[in-house]
Amino acid sequence: MPTTANETGESTRVNKTLIGSLRGVEVGSLFDSRRALHDAGAHRALQAGIVGRREFGAESIVLSGGYFDDEDHGSSIIYTGAGGRDPKTGRQIADQDFTGHNQALVTSCLNGLLVRVVRGAVHRSPHSPPFGYRYDGLFRVERYWRERGRDGFLICRFQLEAEVGESARADPRPGSELPGEDSTRRTQVTALRVVRDTALGRSIKRLHDYTCQACGIRLLCEGGPYAEAAHVKPLGSPHHGPDRTENILCLCPNHHVLFDNGGFTIEEDLSLRGLTGCLRLARGHSVAAEYLAYHRALWEHSTPGSLN
Amino acid sequence: MPTTANETGESTRVNKTLIGSLRGVEVGSLFDSRRALHDAGAHRALQAGIVGRREFGAESIVLSGGYFDDEDHGSSIIYTGAGGRDPKTGRQIADQDFTGHNQALVTSCLNGLLVRVVRGAVHRSPHSPPFGYRYDGLFRVERYWRERGRDGFLICRFQLEAEVGESARADPRPGSELPGEDSTRRTQVTALRVVRDTALGRSIKRLHDYTCQACGIRLLCEGGPYAEAAHVKPLGSPHHGPDRTENILCLCPNHHVLFDNGGFTIEEDLSLRGLTGCLRLARGHSVAAEYLAYHRALWEHSTPGSLN
Repeated sequence: MPTTANETGESTRVNKTLIGSLRGVEVGSLFDSRRALHDAGAHRALQAGIVGRREFGAESIVLSGGYFDDEDHGSSIIYTGAGGRDPKTGRQIADQDFTGHNQALVTSCLNGLLVRVVRGAVHRSPHSPPFGYRYDGLFRVERYWRERGRDGFLICRFQLEAEVGESARADPRPGSELPGEDSTRRTQVTALRVVRDTALGRSIKRLHDYTCQACGIRLLCEGGPYAEAAHVKPLGSPHHGPDRTENILCLCPNHHVLFDNGGFTIEEDLSLRGLTGCLRLARGHSVAAEYLAYHRALWEHSTPGSLN
Repeated sequence: MPTTANETGESTRVNKTLIGSLRGVEVGSLFDSRRALHDAGAHRALQAGIVGRREFGAESIVLSGGYFDDEDHGSSIIYTGAGGRDPKTGRQIADQDFTGHNQALVTSCLNGLLVRVVRGAVHRSPHSPPFGYRYDGLFRVERYWRERGRDGFLICRFQLEAEVGESARADPRPGSELPGEDSTRRTQVTALRVVRDTALGRSIKRLHDYTCQACGIRLLCEGGPYAEAAHVKPLGSPHHGPDRTENILCLCPNHHVLFDNGGFTIEEDLSLRGLTGCLRLARGHSVAAEYLAYHRALWEHSTPGSLN
């Protein structure tokens, strides 16, 4: 199966799930109908509002006026999940949960995957296109939760934020919609830690079923598990570690922080220095000795303190 | 003590440590001497290369040619820590470690704090000013480690990256210096998780001595502890939780992920739903019942899975 570039630039085809932007489908492209949208690959379903799979994340969503709980602020969208609706009246007649297509959006959130957003004319928002459907770029699933909708049933909610430089229709309202900002006063927020990931990292996490190779913990969030991919020899300058499976570990966030900051290292025999125990392995995934040696050298003569 | 704005915009005065950019000191400002630099507050030491404190982070560094292991790529700098040098010859005569001023830079890294970077003319790099000293904006401490320097002794190394939109002298070399890029081929990297923090969050972490209120773990990295501040009622739209101490918890990264994604909630009596035990408290810090109730409502009728 062909893999074309990446999530940030162009789409990655992972087990037939098509994540990211599409070659030939520019932000702002208009489509006459759901059929045209489908045939272009922008939203590959004729009726469903969400396309995607639990295992690999959501490809795209359509804002088409079906859910009157949806909130569209341009670069920020509060999207309502699928399920529990009366198809005739459009009213909510049962609770929604984080299964099915909703779970695909949870996977996107927990894995930092970008989702294509399409707005329909019937969506009735100042951000809707004049007719048909418009592809409005990639959004990040910032957060998800449930709340009671206007009909009194629990609905799944997804906070989507336009990826910077992605949405041609981004329309941030100054002083109102940015994360960390309060409507009454500005709260100064700084980024403490940015966890990065690669497609290969996600495959290693799936291989280990999101279980930490250092401690065996598997964090279970509502709707799915969470783990992080750690590069043993760091990516980027000055280390220039490669994005290869033999250079990647599946770690829980705690051990990722410790591993990146000298809290523990890994001996050649895979025993942990600074922690008790050994690195846990999964069939089909080995870690190269040279990258472990590189990491040990970064923390040579350090005195890892680790957990207490 | 006056507090003026923030780390990203203007400086925050925390226990007499002056973190962030300074009112009246624009990026690109030139100074004749270390004395002028000192008097403007840009770098408040006449000799030391690093200004800062272990508890609150580094204020500023000066690149002044003292360490020939320094690497200056414009928007990306590999900076050598302090200590172990012969003051006469400038050569390294002993190992460096992550104490003193070096530890201040570790604190900046572990807390996502921005550091002012000043370049001196004697630094001898294409990015140096023609004379005197130039303030070149705020940089993030991306990573730290130790390695053997040219003189054979261990040196502390800090990878600094210009905060986007901050450095007037940023000079990214296409295809070479971005995080996640390899010199031989591009590796596509996406942000999986962005951990945000506020000044008040950092004070709560200090109050708890970086110990997780859910599990009691204290992550000890080389040079310092690590914890995250979690807002109970989320900041920003649509929740508009306040940045107040009664709305903040000190959590380890694992429990922060679980708390934000329905892995556990907290009952009114502070027992944990989805985990065993109770929320750990510290003198001088209480959490407001209304925010806990808001968080519980986000995960109402969910079945928190938590750790296993």
